[in-house]
Amino acid sequence: MTRGELKYEGKAKRVYASADADQSGPAEYIVEYKDEATAFNAQKRGEWAGKGATNNAITAHLYPKLEGVGIPTHFIEKLSETEQRVKAVTIIPVEVIVRNVAAGSFAKKLGLEEGTALARPVVEYCYKSDALGDPLVNTDTAIALNWATETELTRVRELALKVNDFLTPFFLERGVKLVDFKLEFGKLPDGTVILADEISPDTCRFWDAESGEKMDKDRFRRDLGGVEDAYAEMLRRVTAPVDG
Amino acid sequence: MTRGELKYEGKAKRVYASADADQSGPAEYIVEYKDEATAFNAQKRGEWAGKGATNNAITAHLYPKLEGVGIPTHFIEKLSETEQRVKAVTIIPVEVIVRNVAAGSFAKKLGLEEGTALARPVVEYCYKSDALGDPLVNTDTAIALNWATETELTRVRELALKVNDFLTPFFLERGVKLVDFKLEFGKLPDGTVILADEISPDTCRFWDAESGEKMDKDRFRRDLGGVEDAYAEMLRRVTAPVDG
Ligand SMILES: Nc1ncnc2c1ncn2[C@@H]1O[C@H](COP(=O)(O)OP(=O)(O)O)[C@@H](O)[C@H]1O
Ligand SMILES: Nc1ncnc2c1ncn2[C@@H]1O[C@H](COP(=O)(O)OP(=O)(O)O)[C@@H](O)[C@H]1O
Ligand SMILES: [Mg+2]
Ligand SMILES: [Mg+2]
Repeated sequence: MTRGELKYEGKAKRVYASADADQSGPAEYIVEYKDEATAFNAQKRGEWAGKGATNNAITAHLYPKLEGVGIPTHFIEKLSETEQRVKAVTIIPVEVIVRNVAAGSFAKKLGLEEGTALARPVVEYCYKSDALGDPLVNTDTAIALNWATETELTRVRELALKVNDFLTPFFLERGVKLVDFKLEFGKLPDGTVILADEISPDTCRFWDAESGEKMDKDRFRRDLGGVEDAYAEMLRRVTAPVDG
Repeated sequence: MTRGELKYEGKAKRVYASADADQSGPAEYIVEYKDEATAFNAQKRGEWAGKGATNNAITAHLYPKLEGVGIPTHFIEKLSETEQRVKAVTIIPVEVIVRNVAAGSFAKKLGLEEGTALARPVVEYCYKSDALGDPLVNTDTAIALNWATETELTRVRELALKVNDFLTPFFLERGVKLVDFKLEFGKLPDGTVILADEISPDTCRFWDAESGEKMDKDRFRRDLGGVEDAYAEMLRRVTAPVDG
């Protein structure tokens, strides 16, 4: 596997064409996970050794499990410490947020205490635009502005809730409360909607089930310290065998 | 009809109990439309003679027409220049916005030029809270926080789109483009969802169909001048007979 052209450099990853992929087969990308961290629409910046490797490893561990419960994903294989091979998709420009517990901006704007349980999962959609600060939208808006079709968004919602149904008990067995998380979906050339991007402490809120301690990017956002240890501990918990 | 106790004083109206309503019958309120105007969550304030009367008259003209096409409303009768009799409801604390054209905060946050047509109507929901600045939410959030049930919100959406389907051609025949509008719904004691509050230049964006001139509260919000004339002209167009 050799990297081809750099297709896209984002805040946390680089996406490369795959130089030696079979040209007649479906397009593939190589995703490289970086050690850089950003928050608040890149107003805050940081970096720590091992971040890229940790997020790559966590995603590489989780996506095959999601495939196992019927969620199609872009993941093909882990290539190296910081790289993975994925199916190339056209990203649907809507970030999908699933919330089980009120936290972050959601809690703040609704005047709820962080930690307030939600009577049922809330699925939110933000228009993926750094220039506009990823504004909250709804499915009507996404359809009216031709970002996705109604059929695609129905499937996105169904898959997002299915991811939550799998991950919530998965993490709880590992002593972690899955508070909320962000997903991105994409379309294959035939129109199939699949889960893309990553699932990691960068894109989820993880709280220790006993102590409530934050084990995710909020440690970086809020300068809580111990961010490297938290990410490493999350990798350990995700990959360690669980007693039956 | 005599006013009883003042139940609620809002930014644009006062709601009174009805002193001589039949105590055994369904509860009724008297709504008094004020001349005061506020914008940007009451940070901007103004007042002009005749505003209350105009909004009362426009609402009193439109609600019976909506009833006529199968939309249940709180409206019973106009009592005076500035007062109307309505059915008392428990307001669902979600403002319902229907958009046909991108304008205002919606256009701004999405980087769209004001006036961009939407491929289909967009229904948005804001949590009705002056303290929180009426934040945008979605139906999942409203259900998860017990502001309304899924069944109620399905009905709210159906009715909101029906209001739009009636009002869009109604205004166009009168030379007015219905850009967007805000509705409030409430529940009768038996749980029936009905349209409450008002429909007026305070709660709609009206653009002259020919010139594009604004004929609504944006004249006040944006200091465009001619706000009294615009409201009076809207009342004239709403109530004048239309050539068949
Ligand atoms: N399978 C895929 N095919 C194409 N693009 C993808 C795929 N998976 C993720 N992406 C996109 O690659 C970029 C990942 O880089 P990242 O640093 O997370 O970007 P961002 O700064 O936009 O969050 C994102 O724009 C994401 O939408
Ligand atoms: N039929 C009704 N029964 C009870 N409350 C109503 C009814 N119609 C409207 N209301 C409420 O009365 C108030 C109207 O006053 P207004 O000045 O518009 O208030 P606000 O400042 O909240 O916009 C609003 O809170 C609205 O929800
Ligand atoms: Mg990203
Ligand atoms: Mg009001």
